[in-house]
Amino acid sequence: MPSYSAPVEDTLFVLNEVLNINQYNNLPGFADATPDMIEAILTEGAKLCEEVTAPLNKSGDSEGCILNEDGTVSVPKGFKEAYDAYCEGGWNGLAMPEEFGGQNLPAALGSAIGEYMNSANVAFAMYPGLTQGAVAALLAHGSQEQKEIYAPKMIAGQWTGTMNLTEPHCGTDLGLLRTKAVPNEDGSYAISGQKIFISAGEHEMSENIIHLVIARIEGAPEGTKGISLFVVPKYIVNEDGSIGERNALSCGALEEKMGIHGNSTCVMNYDGAKGWLVGTENKGLSAMFTMMNEARLGVGIQGLAISEVAYQNAVEYAKDRRQGRALSGAQEPDKSADALIVHPDIRRILMTIKSINEAGRAFALWTSLNGDLSHRGLDDETREAADDMMGLLTPVLKGVLTDKGFDNAVMAQQVFGGHGYIQEWGMEQFVRDSRIAMIYEGANGIQALDLVGRKLPRNGGRAIQAFFKEVGSFISSHKDDDKMADYTKPLSQGLSKLQEATMWLMSNAMAKPENAGAASTDYMHLTGLVVLGYMWAKMAKVANDKLEAGTDNPKFYENKLLTAKFFMERIMPECNAHMDRISTGCETMMAMETDAF
Amino acid sequence: MPSYSAPVEDTLFVLNEVLNINQYNNLPGFADATPDMIEAILTEGAKLCEEVTAPLNKSGDSEGCILNEDGTVSVPKGFKEAYDAYCEGGWNGLAMPEEFGGQNLPAALGSAIGEYMNSANVAFAMYPGLTQGAVAALLAHGSQEQKEIYAPKMIAGQWTGTMNLTEPHCGTDLGLLRTKAVPNEDGSYAISGQKIFISAGEHEMSENIIHLVIARIEGAPEGTKGISLFVVPKYIVNEDGSIGERNALSCGALEEKMGIHGNSTCVMNYDGAKGWLVGTENKGLSAMFTMMNEARLGVGIQGLAISEVAYQNAVEYAKDRRQGRALSGAQEPDKSADALIVHPDIRRILMTIKSINEAGRAFALWTSLNGDLSHRGLDDETREAADDMMGLLTPVLKGVLTDKGFDNAVMAQQVFGGHGYIQEWGMEQFVRDSRIAMIYEGANGIQALDLVGRKLPRNGGRAIQAFFKEVGSFISSHKDDDKMADYTKPLSQGLSKLQEATMWLMSNAMAKPENAGAASTDYMHLTGLVVLGYMWAKMAKVANDKLEAGTDNPKFYENKLLTAKFFMERIMPECNAHMDRISTGCETMMAMETDAF
Repeated sequence: MPSYSAPVEDTLFVLNEVLNINQYNNLPGFADATPDMIEAILTEGAKLCEEVTAPLNKSGDSEGCILNEDGTVSVPKGFKEAYDAYCEGGWNGLAMPEEFGGQNLPAALGSAIGEYMNSANVAFAMYPGLTQGAVAALLAHGSQEQKEIYAPKMIAGQWTGTMNLTEPHCGTDLGLLRTKAVPNEDGSYAISGQKIFISAGEHEMSENIIHLVIARIEGAPEGTKGISLFVVPKYIVNEDGSIGERNALSCGALEEKMGIHGNSTCVMNYDGAKGWLVGTENKGLSAMFTMMNEARLGVGIQGLAISEVAYQNAVEYAKDRRQGRALSGAQEPDKSADALIVHPDIRRILMTIKSINEAGRAFALWTSLNGDLSHRGLDDETREAADDMMGLLTPVLKGVLTDKGFDNAVMAQQVFGGHGYIQEWGMEQFVRDSRIAMIYEGANGIQALDLVGRKLPRNGGRAIQAFFKEVGSFISSHKDDDKMADYTKPLSQGLSKLQEATMWLMSNAMAKPENAGAASTDYMHLTGLVVLGYMWAKMAKVANDKLEAGTDNPKFYENKLLTAKFFMERIMPECNAHMDRISTGCETMMAMETDAF
Repeated sequence: MPSYSAPVEDTLFVLNEVLNINQYNNLPGFADATPDMIEAILTEGAKLCEEVTAPLNKSGDSEGCILNEDGTVSVPKGFKEAYDAYCEGGWNGLAMPEEFGGQNLPAALGSAIGEYMNSANVAFAMYPGLTQGAVAALLAHGSQEQKEIYAPKMIAGQWTGTMNLTEPHCGTDLGLLRTKAVPNEDGSYAISGQKIFISAGEHEMSENIIHLVIARIEGAPEGTKGISLFVVPKYIVNEDGSIGERNALSCGALEEKMGIHGNSTCVMNYDGAKGWLVGTENKGLSAMFTMMNEARLGVGIQGLAISEVAYQNAVEYAKDRRQGRALSGAQEPDKSADALIVHPDIRRILMTIKSINEAGRAFALWTSLNGDLSHRGLDDETREAADDMMGLLTPVLKGVLTDKGFDNAVMAQQVFGGHGYIQEWGMEQFVRDSRIAMIYEGANGIQALDLVGRKLPRNGGRAIQAFFKEVGSFISSHKDDDKMADYTKPLSQGLSKLQEATMWLMSNAMAKPENAGAASTDYMHLTGLVVLGYMWAKMAKVANDKLEAGTDNPKFYENKLLTAKFFMERIMPECNAHMDRISTGCETMMAMETDAF
């Protein structure tokens, strides 16, 4: 069975030393996040993940969920108890407002815990993950009454939440949706329609399930301009807050999926179910979009999380399994063979994953911290700059960390040879489980289009210019530091390519938007590489400074420098290939007639 | 349910127009392979695959195989009937010697049919595939008596075959194997030990199963020098050729795998089973190696095959599914939305796969034809040159077409969005099924080491020099042809990078073999890109010539040129990144202490 050990030391390194989170202790909620408190919270969260949820990951996959004849859904053994332990720990409320029972700590801390949860058991982590998303939507767009009815119990975990967007004929293009909302006399609506791929849609782990459903009010305009958001509880809530009658909604079927079998992914049928409008009529889609960045950040972290746990298990196997001899001669001649880890090609795999994970962790926590600053920053300027950066980089984080996360899980599986292909070792589950993150919350092609079509041009390119400035300043302020040359030189080359690609888009995509579409995925990955390279350069700077100042843990920082160097040598060269592709434009692919495919 | 249509037209294009197979009609067996005969055979094979085995692919995956209490293994419904139809068609014997009931046609034709079989149903195709491998081993190394006993019935398909190499503690490093062979008084051996991951190890589709097993004869040297090959039938064969008593071997368990569920992958227990030595004592491993190239070619073709069927289904979905509008304005304003295929990013995916598949098909058939020439060529020189090329390029074909094949299946799945993740559409099965091809018959890291450590330096680099000469001559003989510039220029740049990488290895890997290991995977993929680019340049030449001469099918050739251009623009740029990585050497990855991973 695979094992998991939360990378607390590395998270602390990023939060305290790289991002210097302590500098924000004048912001709401940050004062409580002292270094000791952060360490205590991470350690406690690690314990829950390592001891309670990780041991249920493999059994959850084999057992899956079952739709019973009475319409209830059974989750895998142990999930309910684990969920209770999660709720008892107050984990849902970590970064939620105190007003509704939360602890109001930085969301960046929540993201760190989110990584551990998803490494340990992604199918399990989705239950509270969806709840947090639903709470965020209600807090952002619900009425005060709605917040008071739902938020405290959802934050406590007593009730869980879901998001209902997709229908059989529409996913990306929600303008096509057909679910109807007909006004009732009491101010509520009767919701009717079918939703598919609804994660955590039905189960008995919580007393109630609060569905957020997008639907079209009778007579509303067609397309995306006629979509409204509704809260549709499984059990209608009485005025005193107690559970009332069963609502007219049910799980029609469980989806048969490639992975995340421990999560109940439901076809949900709404048959005139009672729902209440959240926010403004016909503004449902923009309500969903305002919280999309946070949900996409969460999915990007899933990519990192599975990559991390897959890496850990591949390392363990590579140290343990003996096959063949080191190319330079036997390392342990008294043993039957050397460990796999002596082989350069195995090290190439492991260091590739390691170098992406550690930079990915910094990227995720930096983006999450920008999310915090965009809400809690003390002045408009800070909030705007943080919001710009988070908006720009979230599709990159989602698209790149889930693409790379999946690739990494596949590479980690490869270390096991044939043993990676059988269920026993759990590696093939990581591959199956990580695959979904490239698809949901907007398939990665949609992330790429969001980046080039929406985030890049917004406000005349203000966000990307700020990013260029930040990375450029970092490079120039260390250009005379010989110890930084191994990191700043490749970063600078990558940045040039990204600037070139951005110029190319400005010159070629306005007149011919297909050029943007044809460039989008490569542009997203090119941006991702520059961000990850920037994270490594920043980490290398910290490491160099620590080593120069003297530290009782020099190995830790020396290994950071080695991993940074590997990233610069082996991963950054992809920047050029992305730019080469972008510059060829859309012509060839658009020239092919449809029938010729 | 996914559909499949065998690409007969494209196979004919490669065999007749690109490889000009007709030029070899003076070789044994080739005279029968007239253009009409080739087309008839491909069409007949296509029919079997499309109508008989493809419809069992999805059900075979859900049903899987079952180990019954009596030790028998049940295969999925319909497999036995499909296998009978396959045998009736005489497909096993297509390229087998007439002496034992085969038709002695070119193996290249068998490879074409192999592609169709694996596209339609890879789990099914493995049963006869393994049999063909076992027959090849017996024909190459068995005694005349052994050939006469086993080959005719195996070629007829009445008996099937397996290869037993892997043991729980050894896969890549077979020198560690423990299965024992103790001489019996009658000249046979008593074989005892456990083998794992044995494809088609037990089932009731054939009267007998002929296991080829490697084991160590009591007292033999340790390591790879003490390994012998044995034929160990499930039922011992009587002198008159009839089935005799049950041998002391059994399926201990079925492996629980990520995919290829329709194939019975067995743990095989040998408890003093009667076996007969094949070939020379202690030379079992080299006997296995002489046929390894052919088996690896077959697995490379599996990668292509699943990529092709995944592509076909993604194309169908992209034409059918409507989401969003074309970036340049609605293409079908009267419909609710445009088809996915209007979107450049979808076209990027589809053309990436298409451009790799079509070049991959040419690569596979060219390599297979080299295999034919290495056996059937009329003079030593031809045979040697063909054997060199096949030996050099087989690890490349296996490693690159299976890596790309899996990536392509994942990309094709992505076209389906959430529908790609659920079982209904069959796309996630293609991903799971294609994953194994990167692992078995030597994991792809081993292919890369075989290339840089064995095939490249052999005979002073004779094979790679011949490859450089062939590609270089092609480029220079078309250097004044403007219509070829789009193809020869990128090919020439790729070739330069490969030559540079080869020089780098010569200068750096002799003294420090870890440099070869660190470069191996990138070198393999760099070689693969140059081969695929060469295939495209050759195909473009044929297309240009046809279009110039006039043809009644100009679209076919115009689309070849477009696809060739796409490959040059979008895939060839990866060459540079591979070279950049190779040149960084092994230093950083080897510097990391084991505990730091």
